[in-house]
Amino acid sequence: MTLTIALDAMGGDDAPEVVVRGADRARQQRGDLAFSIYGDEARVGPLLAKRSELGAVSRFVHTDSHVAADAKPSQALRQGRGSSMWKAIEAVKSGEAAAAVSAGNTGALMAMAKFQLKTLAGIDRPAIATVMPTAKRDTVILDLGANVDCAPENLVQFAVMGEVYARAVLGVAKPEVGLLNIGTEDYKGDDTVRAAAAMLRASDLPIEFVGYVEGTDVTAGKVDVVVTDGFTGNVALKIAEGTSRLYAHKLRTVFKASWRAKLGYMLLRQELDGLRRQLDPRRYNGAMFLGLAGIVVKSHGGTDTVGFANAIGVAANLVARGTNERITQELGRLGDEAAERARLAAS
Amino acid sequence: MTLTIALDAMGGDDAPEVVVRGADRARQQRGDLAFSIYGDEARVGPLLAKRSELGAVSRFVHTDSHVAADAKPSQALRQGRGSSMWKAIEAVKSGEAAAAVSAGNTGALMAMAKFQLKTLAGIDRPAIATVMPTAKRDTVILDLGANVDCAPENLVQFAVMGEVYARAVLGVAKPEVGLLNIGTEDYKGDDTVRAAAAMLRASDLPIEFVGYVEGTDVTAGKVDVVVTDGFTGNVALKIAEGTSRLYAHKLRTVFKASWRAKLGYMLLRQELDGLRRQLDPRRYNGAMFLGLAGIVVKSHGGTDTVGFANAIGVAANLVARGTNERITQELGRLGDEAAERARLAAS
Repeated sequence: MTLTIALDAMGGDDAPEVVVRGADRARQQRGDLAFSIYGDEARVGPLLAKRSELGAVSRFVHTDSHVAADAKPSQALRQGRGSSMWKAIEAVKSGEAAAAVSAGNTGALMAMAKFQLKTLAGIDRPAIATVMPTAKRDTVILDLGANVDCAPENLVQFAVMGEVYARAVLGVAKPEVGLLNIGTEDYKGDDTVRAAAAMLRASDLPIEFVGYVEGTDVTAGKVDVVVTDGFTGNVALKIAEGTSRLYAHKLRTVFKASWRAKLGYMLLRQELDGLRRQLDPRRYNGAMFLGLAGIVVKSHGGTDTVGFANAIGVAANLVARGTNERITQELGRLGDEAAERARLAAS
Repeated sequence: MTLTIALDAMGGDDAPEVVVRGADRARQQRGDLAFSIYGDEARVGPLLAKRSELGAVSRFVHTDSHVAADAKPSQALRQGRGSSMWKAIEAVKSGEAAAAVSAGNTGALMAMAKFQLKTLAGIDRPAIATVMPTAKRDTVILDLGANVDCAPENLVQFAVMGEVYARAVLGVAKPEVGLLNIGTEDYKGDDTVRAAAAMLRASDLPIEFVGYVEGTDVTAGKVDVVVTDGFTGNVALKIAEGTSRLYAHKLRTVFKASWRAKLGYMLLRQELDGLRRQLDPRRYNGAMFLGLAGIVVKSHGGTDTVGFANAIGVAANLVARGTNERITQELGRLGDEAAERARLAAS
């Protein structure tokens, strides 16, 4: 079966080049992809013309405008109806595409996706999720910035969505879910986190909720899914990225410090390249908007061809594994169980 | 002039050994220290007896109890009046010691310190601050967990305290202060962060407020002082620590992967040791409780002799540089300026 992915060709620092090259790379990596590409014909046309195999599986639609990287989401929503970003999401809504991928303005993408696609039944607010490398496993973390203020119910819904993602896409049999906090004792944290923990413990959700996790637990890989509000999650992910970059930078300096060091680096190069591949941020590129009635993936604005191709792969996996259908099922079961408990309590 | 530091000998994973050894090391590092040591005589006595030079500058006071690592702060406050932690803080209150250092329960230490010492005039809530290494400079970050919910006024006061610390103790001529957020655009963040930014911009405080910083800006060393609420700050610091640990662990594996890799490591060892010393978490051990009418420093519970000695050094520096007096001055000036502006507006 062919999966059609809608692409916002104009989003990201190096658009449209990276988008078109990334699509071509993704096409080579898996044989089941087709594309609907939205962007400026004068810029995208020549790039597609040079790639006949990509052209053969792509439909190109010219758009007159695109969303600026620094546009306010509300403004983009009002003024960006004909933009490449809007059109890519619209293709998901109409069923023409199975998913949309953009490396453009995150806030605008979320606002447009919410407006056009609406949320899944049982979800009040969608969340942004990604996978990060840790000492022991790949860990899903959400929310990363869609919701700066969260109610306990939102965090519970994030837990369900993250758990389904870890099961459906990462293939973890029984994902362990933790709630990010500033300590593991019961009394730690704010009212929202404590209330969400109480709800997760009290619910009969088929979720392996392990309780609170701290920042150091996240990087140690204590759980498969880390649930938090969008403010904390955004800071946590960017601090992790920044610390990795700091280490990489310091190490590069060390490896060039002397002839002796350079020789040492040459001897270690094979292993260090392996480590670099393992922790390569491009491998983890592609933040999923979970909880929408449609699949939308946000690529890092500054990524390259490899990273953008990976974001397309993330979108394709979300579709192929039926992630949204499973989230709806889980939430339906949650509703059924709540109804059942109410019936039992009343009888 | 001799600085007397009060020590809770019973706090921390390896107390009292690490505390006594750390005190001895700090004494050797700087000649102006004396100690008031509080703890269980049966355990601390023999350790002191073996160290005559430390004994010569120490006063030991037996205490019957100590605060458990997992005690709830409110409970510690009610039941821990005779504990080694309580007595160490009491010594600061009575003027017998210039500062207190403990590696015990953070929440209990803050609760007892607030109760006994009270806050400085103009400070509603004390904050926990530490110094972290970044790509460009040592950066002060606060709050790290004393206040999970903050009002904008609290964040403004944290900015003043952090700025004074960077100037007085780190010796930065004109520290740049940033407010941690999930983006740098004006509309990003929650109401509290936006209100705090507006207050910092509107005030005539002699503070170099550069606006919002993101997680990646923190590790890149964009500012000297990072201001945030205690929930976000705690997660940020622990994610940074955890990511460093993850890298160190992965690198150790690489360096042992083969004979070739081991040889490479040997050639790089000198430079890598330099890097390790530079990023050594023990060098950054010692979280300051800023905003109290008295100096209290919290050491990591799991630190070793080197780390504990460093925490004592942090406390001594805070005293020697007159940090609290300077914070009070700044806040006084803030009050004067507000009064002056009100006068001008009314005239």
